[in-house]
Amino acid sequence: MRLGGTLSSARIAYETWGRLNDRADNAILILTGLSPSAHAASSPDDPEPGWWEDMVGPGKALDTERFFLVCANSLGSCKGSTGPASRDPETGQPYRLDFPMLTLEDVANSAREVVRQLGIGKLHALVGPSMGGMSALAYAVMHPGEARHLVLISCAAHATPFAIALRSLQRELIRSDPSWEGGAYPLDREPVDGMKLARKLGMITYRSAAEWLERFGRDRVPDDRRGPGPFPMEFQIESYLQHHADRFTGGFDANSYLYLSHAMDLFDIAAHGDGVEGALARVRAERVLVIGVETDLLFPLWQQRELARGLEAAGPAVSFQALPSLQGHDSFLVDTERFGEVVGGFLRET
Amino acid sequence: MRLGGTLSSARIAYETWGRLNDRADNAILILTGLSPSAHAASSPDDPEPGWWEDMVGPGKALDTERFFLVCANSLGSCKGSTGPASRDPETGQPYRLDFPMLTLEDVANSAREVVRQLGIGKLHALVGPSMGGMSALAYAVMHPGEARHLVLISCAAHATPFAIALRSLQRELIRSDPSWEGGAYPLDREPVDGMKLARKLGMITYRSAAEWLERFGRDRVPDDRRGPGPFPMEFQIESYLQHHADRFTGGFDANSYLYLSHAMDLFDIAAHGDGVEGALARVRAERVLVIGVETDLLFPLWQQRELARGLEAAGPAVSFQALPSLQGHDSFLVDTERFGEVVGGFLRET
Repeated sequence: MRLGGTLSSARIAYETWGRLNDRADNAILILTGLSPSAHAASSPDDPEPGWWEDMVGPGKALDTERFFLVCANSLGSCKGSTGPASRDPETGQPYRLDFPMLTLEDVANSAREVVRQLGIGKLHALVGPSMGGMSALAYAVMHPGEARHLVLISCAAHATPFAIALRSLQRELIRSDPSWEGGAYPLDREPVDGMKLARKLGMITYRSAAEWLERFGRDRVPDDRRGPGPFPMEFQIESYLQHHADRFTGGFDANSYLYLSHAMDLFDIAAHGDGVEGALARVRAERVLVIGVETDLLFPLWQQRELARGLEAAGPAVSFQALPSLQGHDSFLVDTERFGEVVGGFLRET
Repeated sequence: MRLGGTLSSARIAYETWGRLNDRADNAILILTGLSPSAHAASSPDDPEPGWWEDMVGPGKALDTERFFLVCANSLGSCKGSTGPASRDPETGQPYRLDFPMLTLEDVANSAREVVRQLGIGKLHALVGPSMGGMSALAYAVMHPGEARHLVLISCAAHATPFAIALRSLQRELIRSDPSWEGGAYPLDREPVDGMKLARKLGMITYRSAAEWLERFGRDRVPDDRRGPGPFPMEFQIESYLQHHADRFTGGFDANSYLYLSHAMDLFDIAAHGDGVEGALARVRAERVLVIGVETDLLFPLWQQRELARGLEAAGPAVSFQALPSLQGHDSFLVDTERFGEVVGGFLRET
């Protein structure tokens, strides 16, 4: 691992769609945001809709009739890949906080092992939204020339102090839950309250003030759903956050969340060169698509503009798209009409 | 109280500066944000610097040589006015959650009692930043013609769902601290952990991403201040938030915070008329100054623009100032050079 420590036998969960052609040159690797699994889309093996269902499939933006799609679950996650909740073969116990400090470079390198195991020498494209965009950037900088095209979505060369503050507080909310037990909670008894609070803060940063103004305004919850006490649930926006918090917890290991969230704060592409520009100059790709969203609080538009400018100076033809989507950082998951058009258009021309 | 319940004997703490003239027509009332006391500036009685020290004094924007300044601590606060931590004369115990549901209309009306007790029939001006701006708006709408001039700073006709989400989560952080004890904590044993978390989230919303980028960037804390454990304090921005959280707690009653924060969410000037415009049409003032800040996340600029337009339609001459201050919602406390010039200029012409 980049910051020290080793994993004696790590597993990376992945799923594939479409068929690798004989020249093995039609593969696209998708790296994910913090919480998604490798299940980007439904398949005969697993008909459940995936987290990017509208983007991945026959005739869709990531066209499985033309491309061989691979989506890797991040190292450190709890969705099949080795993470803090996995059993350490040396002790027989879950790693918990003995899991080595994780970086997005480790996430990228372990996903690259999947690519190599599949017999792919050079990716047709590397696609990453959010944290996955940072991991993709690390991949492209550390392994120049191994991806012909890059699609970097709502990501950045490094986190702003504002984004760090918000994620640091989310981690503190989890660690402040007595049920976290210093990371040693039984795996079937998660620190649910802390995770719910962290998820609420997360949702506040993933969406946008403009979207909520339009969707909820000052709408109230019906009287029979306000709940008891002197500070009941009053507004629909509170009910929306509660709903998302309830849905998230139980599905994600708290320590995994801490490691991955921390890795996002630590990530700084500048460490791979003499500053951001020096690092980006190492990228060898034919064409790059950088997409940002006007309402993104967490990865504001100037950060994608910085990436686009730096990559352009490095050589590739760069297309920069600033989308007016209302859903903030989460737009790539929600406004798939706009994203599909831009990503699909880019890939059709490759 | 507006939403039911009564206080048998409420006290409102206030301070004054300067001298009320013989016609009693040079008084300016300042209503405050959520946490400040009535101590806006130092005085012979209390030489400690006040929360608006740079704005209030001889020759300053709020010129105590010309005006008689009054600053009232909000009803429901814990800085001298009657609030949830005050003793209920009927039971001899603190009110705690038996304190009646508080609204900013109650805050405005109780501050008006101070004005009347001081023998002031008509205010020269009513000044309110943040929550104090909402209270001032309530005052001006409920008591038309009782203030000749209005200075409304970084406030709004009502909170956006985004601001409600952030405040609702702050309140939940306090209530989630086991030491809150359903509001029944001993007054010398506050839910300090919950208050610190809420304060951190508050600070994130009071400042701006642009300010932190400039001040902190990705600066690290020195190794000897990182603290123990696998998730130590890493970045200066985290240390800054910790510092503010440590400084705040112990100084503010948790239940007071809950009541005042909740009152901000409930506030809606539209309730005083047929919508926002109808309510603003009730204001009778000669001139109004509305100030907003470009980097304010909590009360974005369009909300002050909405106020300015609505008030202009109602009759008064309105001056609208959009300031480029970097410090977000807190700018009125920090960028007193810009604010002083605008507020001082406005008052000199009255």
